[in-house]
Amino acid sequence: MISEVITIGTEILIGSITNTNGPYLSRKLTDFGYEVRYHASVRDKYEDIRDAVETAMTRSDVIFLCGGLGPTQDDMTKQALAHALGLKLVFDEEQWDYIVNVAMSFSRHITDNNKRQAEFPEGAIIIENKKGSAPGCLLNYEGKQFFMLPGPPREFEPMVDAIVDRYLKKVNGENFVTSLRLVNIGESQCESIFRREGIETEHVEVNTFAKTGEVEIKVLAHAEREEDIPAIREEHAVAVRRLRTLFHDHIYGDGDKDMFETLVEVLRHENMTISFAESVTGGALVRMITSVAGASDVLKESYITYSNEVKEKLLQVDPDTIEAYSVVSKEVAEEMSRGLYDRTQSTYTVATTGEAGPVASTDHEVGTVYYSIRKNGEEILGGRRLFKGDRTTIQYRSSKYLLASILLHELGEAYGRK
Amino acid sequence: MISEVITIGTEILIGSITNTNGPYLSRKLTDFGYEVRYHASVRDKYEDIRDAVETAMTRSDVIFLCGGLGPTQDDMTKQALAHALGLKLVFDEEQWDYIVNVAMSFSRHITDNNKRQAEFPEGAIIIENKKGSAPGCLLNYEGKQFFMLPGPPREFEPMVDAIVDRYLKKVNGENFVTSLRLVNIGESQCESIFRREGIETEHVEVNTFAKTGEVEIKVLAHAEREEDIPAIREEHAVAVRRLRTLFHDHIYGDGDKDMFETLVEVLRHENMTISFAESVTGGALVRMITSVAGASDVLKESYITYSNEVKEKLLQVDPDTIEAYSVVSKEVAEEMSRGLYDRTQSTYTVATTGEAGPVASTDHEVGTVYYSIRKNGEEILGGRRLFKGDRTTIQYRSSKYLLASILLHELGEAYGRK
Repeated sequence: MISEVITIGTEILIGSITNTNGPYLSRKLTDFGYEVRYHASVRDKYEDIRDAVETAMTRSDVIFLCGGLGPTQDDMTKQALAHALGLKLVFDEEQWDYIVNVAMSFSRHITDNNKRQAEFPEGAIIIENKKGSAPGCLLNYEGKQFFMLPGPPREFEPMVDAIVDRYLKKVNGENFVTSLRLVNIGESQCESIFRREGIETEHVEVNTFAKTGEVEIKVLAHAEREEDIPAIREEHAVAVRRLRTLFHDHIYGDGDKDMFETLVEVLRHENMTISFAESVTGGALVRMITSVAGASDVLKESYITYSNEVKEKLLQVDPDTIEAYSVVSKEVAEEMSRGLYDRTQSTYTVATTGEAGPVASTDHEVGTVYYSIRKNGEEILGGRRLFKGDRTTIQYRSSKYLLASILLHELGEAYGRK
Repeated sequence: MISEVITIGTEILIGSITNTNGPYLSRKLTDFGYEVRYHASVRDKYEDIRDAVETAMTRSDVIFLCGGLGPTQDDMTKQALAHALGLKLVFDEEQWDYIVNVAMSFSRHITDNNKRQAEFPEGAIIIENKKGSAPGCLLNYEGKQFFMLPGPPREFEPMVDAIVDRYLKKVNGENFVTSLRLVNIGESQCESIFRREGIETEHVEVNTFAKTGEVEIKVLAHAEREEDIPAIREEHAVAVRRLRTLFHDHIYGDGDKDMFETLVEVLRHENMTISFAESVTGGALVRMITSVAGASDVLKESYITYSNEVKEKLLQVDPDTIEAYSVVSKEVAEEMSRGLYDRTQSTYTVATTGEAGPVASTDHEVGTVYYSIRKNGEEILGGRRLFKGDRTTIQYRSSKYLLASILLHELGEAYGRK
């Protein structure tokens, strides 16, 4: 199915907001086996929306119109679509009751303007919006599907999920999708490895999605004809198995849980705790844990120790060590993690010291991070690593690297325990 | 000038990356007085790029093609454009030398494929790329301007800045742009206030740009004819003055510095220090400070105190206070900030305790934050506030709210000192 995503809103054209609905919807459609060929964004202008719809009709089967379902005169997506297709708008009493109720539950004032939200192109199927007052709709017209959805992502995203489950025509045959989540490897390294190994086949496509310090590999296959399903299922499974072997040391999961959630879950499951003594990372490490629900089960306390005095007072770092090796050193990191263990008795104690820049205030290159990770007081990982990027990127990447190392260590241990 | 931004790359259509080049370029063009009417994204396919160019020619004056300038066979933006316009591609020896040098400086392997990067549509003006090996170019063709730029944002963004400075035709007359940066006010509240006050006039447009916990107001005016300049300049200035008065209690700046940079600068300038004792915010507060260069001048140490034991041991919170009022209370926040002051003697000591969710583990509603801010040991702000959103949003918003309160307090003090 050739699909097109039209985003409507002047705020997008002036750069006031970044369009995240397009990527969200595109990922879902791609996973479902649709081919997204076009993204277009136009202003809240009648003619611009109409022209975009007319262009889309000439080239796409499934067309999404995102935004412009609100109550103001600027919101005219349904009106412009109806006009482009020569359809009337019909007022829906039931939806009007619903909108009045939603508005009341949010204690919002309701005006005659809101009535526009209860008007739909004739023949449209209404799609419920559980998070706001603007219902969406689906119009089947001359073999094409038009979906109209509200712009705010917190309303848009659950509606997209519902559409994929309920309203999209299944592509013929069967669709295979597997995600693998990797850490401590770069996207381009990852890509060059699986390209060299020739993982992709005639029917199996491999895409990578990079986030800072993390890569998702998505393995897609599609069997159009019933009789091809078993062979293509096997082709897909072989590719997934080969990737699992190739990237065994980097894969931490294959589900929806991100790395931080996975780590907190693993630590909780083993009744372990973690604490940080952060200098160069400035709290980035602890944030990665506290952002996860249930963090308080694994983290009781954590410290940002910027000055030498605090490192000495709180963590019993020896002033002579600082004098001899400088504060940015392996030796100081080791004393920090030891002092932290003595203080907290946490299962994992992690210490960082380094140079985050942007201008070096020490003799060390910007991006230098010394670290020391102890488990039950014994150092299991320590040393120096250089990270590239601006200040916050260095802090983020180095923190993610260290937590990923702990997670991979635990997964390896668990593997050994099995 | 009617402008159009065409982004090229299959990775955008499958949702693998979010298009940030579009918004970046759109903001710059809007500030320059151009009207961005269309965004389009197409795959790395010859025909799709060609069709997009042909459509753009019928409706836009200035057309940007972003991406597809790399060395691989997938990169074909210049080729597709040349074909659409019936132009030849010309090999540029000088650019080839440059590309070879850049590749060598990054110690990258160079192949014959890279020669594509030194080919340009005949008549194109080359635009230097200081951050990578793919030069951009500008083609003037039948009264239209076509800009071709590489996709990676770190190469793209500085090239856009250079284009705005050097290559864009100035719109006739003069352009007025002022930014005001606000905190502790919502975008919709802000918008409804300036709409009610009728700040916008025939020539003055006011746009708002929301980031979490922050709003930028941009005031734009354009005088087309020479003789209108003085009157429209004054109209613009009046709007800016009225906005400054209206939002006096929320404006923290009008330049490029964000709120965290501004706060660190203010604290440094006054030789002040700051420390945090964070429970519900879990390190979000300290991150906002340590992400800024020079943070170590104002922050020596900071604490994440999740458990009751640590609050008692480290901050001398009285167990009876926790017993009497529960740990999520105004009283505990006050004792935390006092204990932190006793410990650190920082100018500002800030404490938080609350319920970040997603499921309440206390009797308090998710999003409840109790806080206490002391200056030189005296509480200047404290109480309870409810924040909406998911866990990290609650942590982020509440932290930003507290730092914004400190910044506005200091700016008010400075105003008093003047």
